[in-house]
Amino acid sequence: MNPIELQPLAHAIRFLSIDAIVRAGEGHQGVPLGMAEIATALFTQHLKFNPEDPAWPDRDRFVLSNGHGSMLLYSLLHLTGYQEISLDQVRRFRKLGAACAGHPEIDPACGIEVTTGPLGQGIANAFGMAVAEAYLNAKFGAGLVDHFTYAFVGDGCLQEGVGQEMISLAGHLGLGKLVLFWDDNRITDDGSTELSISENVAARFGVAGWHVLEIDGHDIAAVSAAIKLAKRDSRPSLIACRTVIGRGIPRVQGQRAGHSAQLQVEDAAAARDLLGWPYPPFDVPEPILAAWRAAGQRSRPDYSAWKARLAALPAHEKAEFERVQAGELPPGWREVLHAYKRRAAGDDTARPGIHTSAEINDLLVDILPERIVGCADLEAPTSHKRSLQAFTAQNRAGAYVHCGVREHVMGAMANGLAAHGGVIPLALTYLAFSDYERPAMRLAALMGLPVKFVFSHDSIGVGTNGPTHQPVEILASLRAMPNMLVLRPADAVEAAECWEIALEHRSGPSSLVFARQALAPVRQGQQDENLSRRGAYVLAAAEGGERAVTLLATGSEVSIAMDARRALQGQGVPTAVVSMPCWELFDAQDAAYRSAVLGPGTVRVGIEAAVRLGWDQYLGSRGGFVGMSGFGLSGAAEALYEHFGITVAAVVAQARRLL
Amino acid sequence: MNPIELQPLAHAIRFLSIDAIVRAGEGHQGVPLGMAEIATALFTQHLKFNPEDPAWPDRDRFVLSNGHGSMLLYSLLHLTGYQEISLDQVRRFRKLGAACAGHPEIDPACGIEVTTGPLGQGIANAFGMAVAEAYLNAKFGAGLVDHFTYAFVGDGCLQEGVGQEMISLAGHLGLGKLVLFWDDNRITDDGSTELSISENVAARFGVAGWHVLEIDGHDIAAVSAAIKLAKRDSRPSLIACRTVIGRGIPRVQGQRAGHSAQLQVEDAAAARDLLGWPYPPFDVPEPILAAWRAAGQRSRPDYSAWKARLAALPAHEKAEFERVQAGELPPGWREVLHAYKRRAAGDDTARPGIHTSAEINDLLVDILPERIVGCADLEAPTSHKRSLQAFTAQNRAGAYVHCGVREHVMGAMANGLAAHGGVIPLALTYLAFSDYERPAMRLAALMGLPVKFVFSHDSIGVGTNGPTHQPVEILASLRAMPNMLVLRPADAVEAAECWEIALEHRSGPSSLVFARQALAPVRQGQQDENLSRRGAYVLAAAEGGERAVTLLATGSEVSIAMDARRALQGQGVPTAVVSMPCWELFDAQDAAYRSAVLGPGTVRVGIEAAVRLGWDQYLGSRGGFVGMSGFGLSGAAEALYEHFGITVAAVVAQARRLL
Repeated sequence: MNPIELQPLAHAIRFLSIDAIVRAGEGHQGVPLGMAEIATALFTQHLKFNPEDPAWPDRDRFVLSNGHGSMLLYSLLHLTGYQEISLDQVRRFRKLGAACAGHPEIDPACGIEVTTGPLGQGIANAFGMAVAEAYLNAKFGAGLVDHFTYAFVGDGCLQEGVGQEMISLAGHLGLGKLVLFWDDNRITDDGSTELSISENVAARFGVAGWHVLEIDGHDIAAVSAAIKLAKRDSRPSLIACRTVIGRGIPRVQGQRAGHSAQLQVEDAAAARDLLGWPYPPFDVPEPILAAWRAAGQRSRPDYSAWKARLAALPAHEKAEFERVQAGELPPGWREVLHAYKRRAAGDDTARPGIHTSAEINDLLVDILPERIVGCADLEAPTSHKRSLQAFTAQNRAGAYVHCGVREHVMGAMANGLAAHGGVIPLALTYLAFSDYERPAMRLAALMGLPVKFVFSHDSIGVGTNGPTHQPVEILASLRAMPNMLVLRPADAVEAAECWEIALEHRSGPSSLVFARQALAPVRQGQQDENLSRRGAYVLAAAEGGERAVTLLATGSEVSIAMDARRALQGQGVPTAVVSMPCWELFDAQDAAYRSAVLGPGTVRVGIEAAVRLGWDQYLGSRGGFVGMSGFGLSGAAEALYEHFGITVAAVVAQARRLL
Repeated sequence: MNPIELQPLAHAIRFLSIDAIVRAGEGHQGVPLGMAEIATALFTQHLKFNPEDPAWPDRDRFVLSNGHGSMLLYSLLHLTGYQEISLDQVRRFRKLGAACAGHPEIDPACGIEVTTGPLGQGIANAFGMAVAEAYLNAKFGAGLVDHFTYAFVGDGCLQEGVGQEMISLAGHLGLGKLVLFWDDNRITDDGSTELSISENVAARFGVAGWHVLEIDGHDIAAVSAAIKLAKRDSRPSLIACRTVIGRGIPRVQGQRAGHSAQLQVEDAAAARDLLGWPYPPFDVPEPILAAWRAAGQRSRPDYSAWKARLAALPAHEKAEFERVQAGELPPGWREVLHAYKRRAAGDDTARPGIHTSAEINDLLVDILPERIVGCADLEAPTSHKRSLQAFTAQNRAGAYVHCGVREHVMGAMANGLAAHGGVIPLALTYLAFSDYERPAMRLAALMGLPVKFVFSHDSIGVGTNGPTHQPVEILASLRAMPNMLVLRPADAVEAAECWEIALEHRSGPSSLVFARQALAPVRQGQQDENLSRRGAYVLAAAEGGERAVTLLATGSEVSIAMDARRALQGQGVPTAVVSMPCWELFDAQDAAYRSAVLGPGTVRVGIEAAVRLGWDQYLGSRGGFVGMSGFGLSGAAEALYEHFGITVAAVVAQARRLL
């Protein structure tokens, strides 16, 4: 179809969106009305997709980063034929339980690639998808994963720091198959963009090495031509689309109210008059719907060709491809961890916690080539690169992304990698800087993405770098996050167990939290069972009588608990030590197990170089806590433990006081 | 002195830093060695400061944003004569209790303006200081606050999103008295900057409207000339200084190891040979020290002139200036809140929580002109602008900063405003987006800065915008942060009380958390005492017998507790309701008060539309909780409360089950 014939298709988006928003009583009309022509050009002439197999691994990815404009996406998905986005669902926009939620919520089965809404995240996810594509393309060749990633983006996404980090890093990495469409409508929620920005946004992209095109976003032919150029350019592309926010509704178009002011039935009527759309609400005339459905079928030849290429692969390559796409782990991966664990259980050397994670990951390089590690300029102190190559503009087969000092885009990239599929992302920094990527971590948890957030330098054990670098509140803040496993291993054996747990955990993210300092082994001797899998377990039982004291600890404090137990046992107090590497897993155990571990009626002392918040649930009425009550200080780690009273003597004294 | 004579002064910085780092066994030599000449030019020829009155309100502000290079700052402070930074303190660099901590820790009394280390924060703080300066300059005129703000910044600070947000916003606001010195050494912790960045950083500043100068950072005369130009330009200035990291130590200079590889005694000796510095460790030859001390006295005429200007002010202006500088509140501010509270106590209209905060703040506009409100593009839904003018490049007297969709720099700007002094900063966004500014909030808490972080849309009460916009874990994560007051008022009366608490709380930040939805009044009738000040209080006592049930709730859930109490009382169960607007304040009460409020031995049910983490400390052994256990959903607020079982019926059932 030529552009003139396509205009009614754009209006179909517009009116579906208006009608749904009017019906819902709220919504954000600005994006669907302002980007209807852009979406029409992309979805009818360029996007490679198949509504009948929404999860087709080689589909182009489409991310609505300005997720508040969700009705644009639902309109597109409905019109192109995604079954789950029925007209009934569109009519239930924003109702509890509707597929058409207020903001898009990840559901690859109906064409929603990621959850968006918090600004800047979507484009950073799209960046991650483009990294995944480039990596898998290099790994598998043969056109198995060879697609573009498109994202729609508003001013807000580009003002956010995470967006700026993405621009810089994507430009550096030269991700030529990433194409952004900027909805340059010069309006944000506050009004004119002149209130908060003066810079030439397109020029900013140019500085970062992007290919920049500037067009009229309501000219379907111009959009389509720009996409053609973008696809041919080896740089990532920004298509800056000059648009009118809320276009089509006389009362609000081009105005602040175009963004999300409540629409009335009269607005819908006025738009119908203005644009010459005589059809009743939710009615898409048959020829227009047919044209949209045809657009949805446009990639069938590509789809068939891809199927044929997959079928023609040697069996082992096909199996490997299907394995990583399914997110399944290969035979033998556990054995690597078990072998490491056996060695660690027989080695009494104290080792820096983060190094045990690095050793484990290095052993996994060959058997899990789908691991992609992002690290925020802490390669040396975290040591997870080792035998990996860097992923660069020249080497797409590298699995280590030097993210620079950009934690936020690292986390959001990891989400995009996971949402893309075919890869297992790790994101690595100091625990104190997890706050920088926390908005991305929240979305990983909300989306249920199996990202491995790996952290080093997990407490005052950091030492002289001081309180800016010493987490005290962060374990609690991560434990507060629903659907996030927080794993804090006590030694190399637990490190192997926690990595086994994290790798098999696929319904959500894991945070793996490691000490900088050397950890004395607490799990010597052969132990085949993964004890950490129950979240908490009796590491050392009470001896010489009924258990009187239970010491509960995690990570670097478990060895303090063990020493305190020895002292208490020496004083004739039967004392057990419970190691608690993962609260969430422990909370999921049955009551009998939990009770047996916690020792009801015993004096319980929690020990963790962190704040108490959350511990009381395990401490009962005769509970005490040895840990931090404020921020740390600059000083040697040993001096700090002494200064803050996280010592064997303090644990013993606390237990005796409570007895 | 001419530049050639100044070179030994730069070397004095270099060797003090080397000696301290060698002695400490660790440190980051890259910055002090790479920026020694830049610092020398600034501190000997331009910076307006007075080591004998470090807190002089009109001093130029100096921020070491690349805070890992802390020895540069300590060297400067020692050499220019800040008494607290004695040679003994320098020798104790990184020892527990030393003034010379691993990273600079705020202490205006010894010339450390802000705590830095987490990258990007310092330059964003400096930006906030420049905003404070412009505002106070406009307010008071007469050269009372009329200074520059200088910051040293490394590659990391500029890669961070918060740094990028700052560049964009400072350029937009045209803060001409902000001058950054970029340590362009082309090395980060990972090695060459080529690993993670390709863009022309100077050009990126240029796009944002900055004045950019590019110089040799080891040429003192060139640095000084650039500063002169920067001071004259009406735009914020970036002085891009090409430097050699770790300059002076043959083994590491210009190399990755220049950043922070451990230095040996031999390195110090080799540097002495290379640079011709024959003096023993920590020995600054008298003429060089004298020259530095003279530099420290350079601003005395300015200081005297400023004192004279201050003394010449009309008495009321002088008093007002001294009041805001001291951070003291004026007579009458409480009465404004009390009057609002009385009106609210007599008005049974349910009002959106955030609107009560907006009303209160609008009433304070005249009496507290030192309030500066930053908001992240949510003016309409949060409504705190009202009668305030915007702070713009043209209008420095405006007290409302349209921060754009840039929460992170908003929070860090607020820290800079507070650290500058003379203003009371508010930072305003939705609670779900607090994560975006959390690294700044952490530093506010660590620094003890009285920033008011104001949040709206605090729960599933947000409704149809869905789980991305609905906090569930965020109250817990804020409560986990040491030194942060978290206030969640239940109605307009508590809102006034919480604002009174927040305004009088000056030893740390406050988070004021408000509902989007209308809150039914729970504190009707006259109540003069600020009950919220005790953190939790019995809002409704049990009747008809000994208290059997205690319902504890915060914010929007207090009215649910009140309704549940009515139902339980109706069933003959004596039930009390405890409103808990602030856990931190409650925890600080004496044991007798806490016990009287919590009702030991009663069945206790916590009610909060958020996760349980932390609640157990108040619930005792017969405790229950009605709240959230996972993320929210998109739907109408009422439907969501019903769906997640946060209802009167659920509370009643839980209480009866536990009885």
